[in-house]
This record gives sequence, C-alpha cells and structure tokens, in this order.
Amino acid sequence: MYPLTDEALARDGKVLILAMDHGLEHGPTDFEAVPETLDPETVFEAATHDAVTAMAVQKGVAETYYPSYEDDVNLLAKLNGTSNLWMGEPYSPQNWSVEYAAEIGADAVGYTVYPGSNREPEMFEEFRDAQESARDHDLPVVMWSYARGQGLKNDTKDEVIAYASRIGLELGADVAKVKYPGSKEGMEWAVDAAGDTKVVMSGGSKVDDYQFLESVEAVIDAGGAGLAVGRNVWQRENPERILDALEKVIFEEQSAEDALSEVES
Amino acid sequence: MYPLTDEALARDGKVLILAMDHGLEHGPTDFEAVPETLDPETVFEAATHDAVTAMAVQKGVAETYYPSYEDDVNLLAKLNGTSNLWMGEPYSPQNWSVEYAAEIGADAVGYTVYPGSNREPEMFEEFRDAQESARDHDLPVVMWSYARGQGLKNDTKDEVIAYASRIGLELGADVAKVKYPGSKEGMEWAVDAAGDTKVVMSGGSKVDDYQFLESVEAVIDAGGAGLAVGRNVWQRENPERILDALEKVIFEEQSAEDALSEVES
Amino acid sequence: MYPLTDEALARDGKVLILAMDHGLEHGPTDFEAVPETLDPETVFEAATHDAVTAMAVQKGVAETYYPSYEDDVNLLAKLNGTSNLWMGEPYSPQNWSVEYAAEIGADAVGYTVYPGSNREPEMFEEFRDAQESARDHDLPVVMWSYARGQGLKNDTKDEVIAYASRIGLELGADVAKVKYPGSKEGMEWAVDAAGDTKVVMSGGSKVDDYQFLESVEAVIDAGGAGLAVGRNVWQRENPERILDALEKVIFEEQSAEDALSEVES
Amino acid sequence: MYPLTDEALARDGKVLILAMDHGLEHGPTDFEAVPETLDPETVFEAATHDAVTAMAVQKGVAETYYPSYEDDVNLLAKLNGTSNLWMGEPYSPQNWSVEYAAEIGADAVGYTVYPGSNREPEMFEEFRDAQESARDHDLPVVMWSYARGQGLKNDTKDEVIAYASRIGLELGADVAKVKYPGSKEGMEWAVDAAGDTKVVMSGGSKVDDYQFLESVEAVIDAGGAGLAVGRNVWQRENPERILDALEKVIFEEQSAEDALSEVES
Amino acid sequence: MYPLTDEALARDGKVLILAMDHGLEHGPTDFEAVPETLDPETVFEAATHDAVTAMAVQKGVAETYYPSYEDDVNLLAKLNGTSNLWMGEPYSPQNWSVEYAAEIGADAVGYTVYPGSNREPEMFEEFRDAQESARDHDLPVVMWSYARGQGLKNDTKDEVIAYASRIGLELGADVAKVKYPGSKEGMEWAVDAAGDTKVVMSGGSKVDDYQFLESVEAVIDAGGAGLAVGRNVWQRENPERILDALEKVIFEEQSAEDALSEVES
Repeated sequence: MYPLTDEALARDGKVLILAMDHGLEHGPTDFEAVPETLDPETVFEAATHDAVTAMAVQKGVAETYYPSYEDDVNLLAKLNGTSNLWMGEPYSPQNWSVEYAAEIGADAVGYTVYPGSNREPEMFEEFRDAQESARDHDLPVVMWSYARGQGLKNDTKDEVIAYASRIGLELGADVAKVKYPGSKEGMEWAVDAAGDTKVVMSGGSKVDDYQFLESVEAVIDAGGAGLAVGRNVWQRENPERILDALEKVIFEEQSAEDALSEVES
Repeated sequence: MYPLTDEALARDGKVLILAMDHGLEHGPTDFEAVPETLDPETVFEAATHDAVTAMAVQKGVAETYYPSYEDDVNLLAKLNGTSNLWMGEPYSPQNWSVEYAAEIGADAVGYTVYPGSNREPEMFEEFRDAQESARDHDLPVVMWSYARGQGLKNDTKDEVIAYASRIGLELGADVAKVKYPGSKEGMEWAVDAAGDTKVVMSGGSKVDDYQFLESVEAVIDAGGAGLAVGRNVWQRENPERILDALEKVIFEEQSAEDALSEVES
Repeated sequence: MYPLTDEALARDGKVLILAMDHGLEHGPTDFEAVPETLDPETVFEAATHDAVTAMAVQKGVAETYYPSYEDDVNLLAKLNGTSNLWMGEPYSPQNWSVEYAAEIGADAVGYTVYPGSNREPEMFEEFRDAQESARDHDLPVVMWSYARGQGLKNDTKDEVIAYASRIGLELGADVAKVKYPGSKEGMEWAVDAAGDTKVVMSGGSKVDDYQFLESVEAVIDAGGAGLAVGRNVWQRENPERILDALEKVIFEEQSAEDALSEVES
Repeated sequence: MYPLTDEALARDGKVLILAMDHGLEHGPTDFEAVPETLDPETVFEAATHDAVTAMAVQKGVAETYYPSYEDDVNLLAKLNGTSNLWMGEPYSPQNWSVEYAAEIGADAVGYTVYPGSNREPEMFEEFRDAQESARDHDLPVVMWSYARGQGLKNDTKDEVIAYASRIGLELGADVAKVKYPGSKEGMEWAVDAAGDTKVVMSGGSKVDDYQFLESVEAVIDAGGAGLAVGRNVWQRENPERILDALEKVIFEEQSAEDALSEVES
Repeated sequence: MYPLTDEALARDGKVLILAMDHGLEHGPTDFEAVPETLDPETVFEAATHDAVTAMAVQKGVAETYYPSYEDDVNLLAKLNGTSNLWMGEPYSPQNWSVEYAAEIGADAVGYTVYPGSNREPEMFEEFRDAQESARDHDLPVVMWSYARGQGLKNDTKDEVIAYASRIGLELGADVAKVKYPGSKEGMEWAVDAAGDTKVVMSGGSKVDDYQFLESVEAVIDAGGAGLAVGRNVWQRENPERILDALEKVIFEEQSAEDALSEVES
C-alpha cells in the first residue's frame, strides 16, 4: 500500500464505489427492474452524486461513456470479469490491460480474485502483474476478494471473510472488497486482518433500505472504509435518495435510522 | 467505442458486411450450390456492390485476392476461426495478428467469442489483446458474439442474445454481430443492451427471399445497424438482386415487401 | 499468397519437393529398404536432380548437410515434426524458428497442420506466427495439410481433401500439400478449393512405378502444381530414374505411360 | 551460490529468519492465540531484535509496513505463496516479481518449491527465472524446499529431507529451508547433501520452549546455519525472551538448556 | 551441427563426459556407496583427469564449485532435470537458461528429451529454444535422448535406440547420448542413424569393471564417440583407475581386456 495512491478512491479516508459491471457478470436481466439502467448513462449520472468516490465499469463501457463524465466521476477500471453463462470453476479473465486503462484516464484499477478456487494460483499470478503495473502507473488497486470454489461451503463465515481481506493486504491491494459477514464483530475481524489496507463491503443483491443501511452502519462502526455497491443503488427507483442516506452513514457516521429519517423528511 | 473508428464499416450509421470465411468455418461444401463461389473473386465481385460496407475474410484470402479490390471494397479482417472438422468445446483460434492485418490494409477487424463456452475466459483474454491492438491501429472492432457451449440449450432466447450484444459493449466492440432472436422485440432488447455499440444480425443459413428480408426489416425497425451476411447472398444465383433489396431495407428503410417488389419489377 | 514468394519453390509454376523428414517422423526403419539413405547425403545427392525444386528437411539435417549443397538445392525448412513413438492426439511441435531457418539460408518454410485434431486450435495459432514471420523474411510457406484425429474416419474423402487444401488458402499458405483423394475429380475439387494457392500431392508410402506416376499425372491433369515426395523416390534402388519420369509427367506434362517407357528405353 | 550474496541474510555465517507469511498461507486464525500479531507492526517490532538476520513477508505487507523498518530489519521478500483455502496438488504461485522486490528494497528473496508434487516441473521452471533474476539484482536466494504431494507418505524421512536440501544446492539456492528430520543425524545428512548451500530448519507449529530450542541446538550441532521461524516466536506471549534464547543457541552455540536457564534468570 | 562447436566437448573427436546431476535426478542416496561423493568437489577433482573432456552438472553446483575448476575442467551445463520424487509422465523442466550458463562460463550445454512421452511435444519445443540460443552463444549441444513413457515397453530395442540418436541429428544436437542397446550391432545402427552427430553411450547404473569397459569398447568399435558416465566412475572406490582404463579404451582404442590389465599392473 502506498499512502499516496489513496486519494483517487477515497474522501476523508472513506470509500463509496458505485459498480456497474453487471452487464457482463450477470447479463441484461439485472437491469429489468429499472429498465433505464440498461443505458450506462443512467448509472453514470447517478455516479455524479457527491457521495460516490469512484465508479467501476468494464473497458467497453468506459471507452464509450466515460469521456462525457471524466470531470465529474473518478474511474475505477474493473480489469477482469466473466459472464454467468460460463460454468467452470470460479475464474475471472482479464479483459483490460492496466496500460490501456491508464491511457483512457482511469483513476484506479479493480481486480477480482477467488481464493479457494482451483484456479486461485493463476488469479494470484495475474493479480501480481496487474498490481505491479498499477504501481508503475501510480494507480491504487482494489481487490474484489471472494473466497469461492471447490470445498468452500460457507463463504461468509467470519474467518473466511477475514482471510479474504487479509489476502488483500498480503498481495498488495490498497482496498479489499469483501462480502458482509453478517455482523459488526465479523467485520471487525476482517478490518483488523487487513491492517492498513482499507476494507469495503460488497453491496450484494437488493435488500430493503433499512436492512441495507444497517449493514453499512455496521461496516463503518467496525472500522471499515465504506462500500462498493451496484444493485442496491441503481435497482432502486430513486438512486439519489439512497445515495443521500449512504453519504450520511459513511461520511457523516450517522446511524442507519437517523440517515433514513433525514432523507425521508 | 471510439466515434472516429466507425466510418470504415458503416455508411450513414448502417452496416452491411459481406462475409466469406465459410471456406474455413464450414469447408468447401458450402459453395456447392453455386460452384463459382468457391473462387473468392466471385464473392469479392459481389462485395463491390454499393450496399456492402465491408467484406470479411480470413488472412490467406485477403493476402491473395484483396490487392485487386482494395479500391472498391473495405476489408474487415476476420482474425480468428476454426474448421468444423474439429469437435472440441467451442473455441476459435486467432489466425491473423492485428499488426499484419493493418499492414495488408485492413479497414476493420473481426473476432469471434463464444460466451458460455468452457473456453470463454481464454477467448475474452485473446479478444482483449486484439481489441487493444486494434485501438493502437485505429481499426474498429466487430465482435461475432455467439453464446455457445456447455449448458446452453437454446442460444437464441431473447435474454441470451441480449447478453451476447451486451458483452460486445462491455468488452469494447464497436459492432456486435448476434444471431436473430426471432422477433423485433427480441432484437430491440439486444440493441438496447448494447448501448452505443452497433448491433448487426448474423445472416445464418440460406432462407427464402421474403423471410430473409423480413428479418432484416425487423432488425432495422428494432434500431439495429444492419446485417453481416454470407450464404444468404452468395448462395443465391443472383447475389446482386438480393443486395439491391438489402440496400433498400437497410439504408432506405423500406419494408421487405416493398424492397422485394421493387427489385422484382 | 504473395506472387513474389513463389520462385524459390517452383519452376514454371510446377513444384517437386523431395522430402526427407522421415528420420524424425517415422524413425530409421524407413531407411532399411535402401540402407544408404540413412545417410542424408545420399538424399541430398538425389535432390540435385533438375526435377527437384526444393528439398524438405528438419533443422539438424539442414545445419549439418545443407552447407555442402546450398548452390545446388533449394532448402525448404520443415519447421515442425514429431516422432511416431509418441501417441497423443495428432499434433506437431515446432522444432525450428523461422528466424533461424532464414539465417541458415532456407528458401521456403514448411509446416504441418492437422485440421480436425483436438489440437487444431494450437496448430492454427502456431502456423499463424510461422506464416507471418515467413512473410517478414520473404519466405514462401508450404502447409502440410492433413485432416486427422478424433472423429475423422476417412481422411481421404474428396470433401475432406478439398477442405484441407482450402485451409491452406484461408490461413495463408502459398502451397498446400494434401493426400491424393484417389481420383482426378477429387483432386480437381481440391485444386479449385485452394484458389490461387498451389496444391501438391503428398507422395505417401511406396507403390509401384506406374501406379505412382499415374496418380501424379492425375494431379497435373487436375490443375495441381506437382508433388512432395519422399519414400517413393529414395526408397527406390534408382531414384534418378523415377525423378526422370517425374520430370516428364510434371514439367513436360507427359502421360505416366509415356514417361515410363521413355525412362525405360 | 555466490559468496558475496550471503551477508544480507546471515551474521557470522548464521541465519535467523523471522517469517510472517502466515496471513496468506494459513489465514488470520493463526494469529488468534496472540491477537496483536494480526497487526504486522507487532511482528516487525519483534524482528528488530538483534538475533533476527532477516524478516520474510509477502509483497503487500512489505509495501505497507517495511518503509518504517528498513533501517532496522533486513527484508527477505517471500515471492510466492498460496492460501490454504485452495486444495489442489501442492503448488505456490508467484505473487511478487524480483524486479519489484528489488525496487522496494529487498535484501534477499525467498521461494517455495514442492519437490514431488505433480507441479514440481512448473515450480522448478519458475524458480529458475526467479533465481536468475535475483542474480541480476545481486540478491541471495532462500529456497523453502518441502517434498510434498502425490506418493509422498512421510515427508520427514531423513532421505527426503536430505533430497530437499540437495535440490536447494542443485537449483542454485544460497540457503535451503527444510523441515527438521527429527534427529541431529538426519540434519547432518541434509547439511552435507547441500554442500556449500546453507541449511536452515523450518520452525513449524508451536511447541514448548525446551523442545523447540533442543531441535535448534541439534541443527547447529549438525552444521546447519540456523532457523527460519514464525509461530514459535510470535505465537509466544513474550517473543523477545525466545529470541534471546535463540540468539544464544544459534550465534553463541550454547545448549538449549543453558540458553533457557540464562533467559529465565 | 557446426564443425566449430565440437572442440569444447571432444578430444581427437572422442568424448568422455563425467556427469554428476544425480543429486537432482536420483537424490543423495546415490552417493551413499562412496559418501565423499556427496561433496561435489570430490567429483570435480575426478573430472580433472585428462580423460574427461567435460563435466555435466546442474546450475547450482556450477555456480558454487565451478569457479575453482574452470581452468581444469570443461563445463557442460545440464540445463534441465527433475527429481525422482515426482511421478508424472516423463518430462524434464529447464532449470537453467542458456544465457546464464554462458555467463557462468559453460563450454557446452546438455538437454534431456524423452521421445515417446506424452510430453514429447513440449520437450521438443523447449529443446528448440535451448538449441537455437546455444547457437547464438556458440555452445555445442548434447542431447540426452531417452525414449520413454506411454506405450514404450522396451526402450533398449535396437530400433528405439537408433531412433533416439536420429532424433539428436534431426533436432540439431551435436552429440546424442543414448542408452547402450546391448550389442555392437545395435550401437552401429544408432551411430549410422545419427549421421555426423556424435553418439555417446549413457553410463547407466554401476556394473563390474570388465562388463562396463567391454560395452565402451563396443561403442568405440561401432563408431561411437565415447561415453557420458556418472555412477560407473564416482561410485567406484578408485575413480582414477577406471578413468585410466576408459582413456585407453576410448582415446587409444585398446580392448577392454588390455586396458584393464594395464591399469591392474
């Protein structure tokens, strides 16, 4: 971790990444609830909200839409990804080189690894190259660290989440994005295990407002840096409202309850 | 997608690619119906029709025949391909480097990916290199995006076609070539899912004039950019006549019926 | 295909390649019938015959023996090959780089591909690099194109041979070497399918003089460019006599019968 | 082995490596006994003890914490490693390039190989590149050499340990880290087999003070260079005390008993 | 084969390679009969005997011990090798680059290939790179050519040994090291099959003096260039005596009987 590489992703040490790589990872059915989100512009518009510290997209979306938003949005280049049509042992091929991400104006890079997969070794090796290349370009690195594959029965056990965040530290990520272990205590272990690497919670599939904000509150209480969120923002009819609430929970350290009642008033 | 890279493949934003990589993909039996098409010159002659915005061939055919047509035909270098003698999980090896395609005078490059195949990850990685190298040479990129392999039962379901076109956008194609989902509605989803990436229908095996033009009409109505066609042109006794009709449907936005009656008159 | 690259392999557009890679492909038992052919010099001597337009050998044989024959023999560097001790799915590793072949003075390069093998994709990719590197060195390329592997029951069916020669054209070979399909008609299809790529018959295992020359005559009648032959020359007690006859059939377009009676007189 | 490359790791020819790559190799549960060791600073503090000749960590830990300790601690860059979530045949992917380790200020590099694994060949090849690159940067090389995988029933048999240390010599390691074979005689064979390559014992899981120091005494008596230790230091409540004792056994060649009674007094 | 590259390995066209890669290939148990041979110096001392034209060792042994012997011993850098703990299909990973071997002062390089193994193709490809790189550094190449793997029942049949030596010629080795086929006639075939590539017998496991020298005599009578020997020299109590005898058989072309009685007198 380089102290200097943090600014592109964070504000006051806190992080709110808006992610929209679901078109690749899940396919267009993910956008059916709110059909206009099929258009990346809709989501880029949401990313101009002050609360959002960076937006994560795949190469083609960045090439096509980022030029109109480069003054208002920090680009987190999501370098790898795969479709869910494919059913092999968890693995995520690299679709975007760091060099080309830098050329397009990326402010940071993101990379998925699946510790526990049969293909963990390749992913570690590919992460190595991406991470070291990012260092050459002074780009901070976010690791999507999800234990998955083979013998892993429960990938949200506390010790598995803590292991995932620790792997972020060990392999040289500046930010580790992990699943929510289900409790503040679990998150505390994950945060401590990551040392000076920041930990953010992965937003996951859409849940109701209070449940969602409460988990974010627990992350902040546990010392986490924030959130990387997709569907829980843009699958809502009014993404701005939830972003307002997230801003209060993450950056102003309000409770979920207070934040919700403020945005409802 | 780069706005600038579009001109080589399109006219007024519309696309009609004449493809003749069937000698590699299907073998010479594909040319038996109209034996003179075994000779690439016959098909290059057809490609001089005003309606055709680019012709797609493999490296050896380009090396040998393109020099005589470079003033009249735009070359779409089809970079990968395989024979149908081979029966492994869907995959398409790269037979032509972007560098050498550029050297020969290609105006654009084409690349097949099979989302859903066991070998999807490799194809994504190889597409990455081809796409980024094409950017270096200012060549637009057409992705042949066909969901195929493993557990895919019906690769023309609407959501699978929309996923295929979306992958074109996500991975950085300028044009996505997908199978016709069977209806205008299905095509609309595919077109919307691709955002600013243009979508063209894959011509498929030969059908009768009206049925063929009707599907092209639906593509245009759905907002698609046009067609990439092979057998439905050069397996016809009179390719010029069907190209005349396609010109009317694609570029003049006539109905299939009107176009047919005009060329019949 | 580049018009310029043809001269090294052909005379008046006809081709007679004398091949001696059997020490690698078949092992030394192939030389037992005429023991002195175990010594590469014996075969290089035969290659000085006027009828022979190039001699095909592996790297080590070229390094060791070609320096004494470089004024009298055109070197066709056979870049890949494997032993028959190995029993995997058909594949042929590259034993010689194009760069080093050029350095040694090769006039052309040769490469085996097995369309239909499980490993077809790798072979196509490796052929790509060899072919493009050969273009950089202005060396013509001969493809040994043999459909083989997996589900291929009869690799000398007309359509399979025509497919094999077409693959030569599609992938950028200047000459395609294919098995004899058993008839002039079969060979015509193969020649037509290859377009401007020249087609030569693969000599195969030793047969009697008339039967052998008759198949060569059929190749020439079918528009083929000639022959790549090994055992049918150097497994004969008097290779010069059969080369005399081949010269008449290939370059003077005599019938097998006439050619035989002339060399017998 | 280069005589010059030894100083970074050794004092008076003796070696005491403090290793903390357990966060990657074993996960955060390894730190539960002494929770503050989850924080790498705690272990770096321990590494400032005079007895420690180098500290071994993964890339991310070095990037983040080493800058504060570079004056007081020699950095042994542990280049490869894997998680224990993964259950394939023993293999250890490279997570850190030698070039980047050198850039960060590494004084030496470490690399795990598992002779006997199905993936032994790849590991040997990857070790080759790491070792030769380390030579280019004048960095000594420590091989973690653990026979493991497939048919290996008992990987601490004397001949297996001696084989492991010999592989260190044969492949070009300056120091071979091997498991303790259980006796001084076993260790003598391992030391002799390694020739001029230094041999250090791998600390293993935590045992009681006397048992641990006694095995270190046996290593020194057998001519070994010392120890690479992790849990047996930082899983103790008072790491300084055991480091005091290790200093006496390794550098002053005291008996385990004397060393213990001195530190207890 | 380049005539110039022969001098480093041969004297008067004869070759006696002393090999000591057994520490890697067989493990330290190979040295138990004569324990001091565990120390590479003992074997390097033996290699200073006038009869020895080169000594073959792995990288680490060369780095550590060769500097003291570079004036008296020619270094044959054995580039690949594997442990016998590993039980996969025969394969030998490359542990030493040609570039680094040259830097250390190697006079020649050696490489094992296993024709007939499932992994024959990779080994041929890797041999290609090593051989061509050796040409760039003007280093002669010795191929350890052992048919092995899969369906090979008897790898010392005459035709298999002759095939192995022929592969040395075909792929560009200057010297082929093959197993003794059991008779002078078998060896003659191997020598003839290799053309101008020199053939040396592989020493194999230790046998009695007369039996050993008799096989060497047969090799020389068959036109072979000599011997590559390990255990049959350094597993003897008095290696100098057997080297004296070998010098007589190989360089003075004495019979085994005469040589033995001379050294006994």
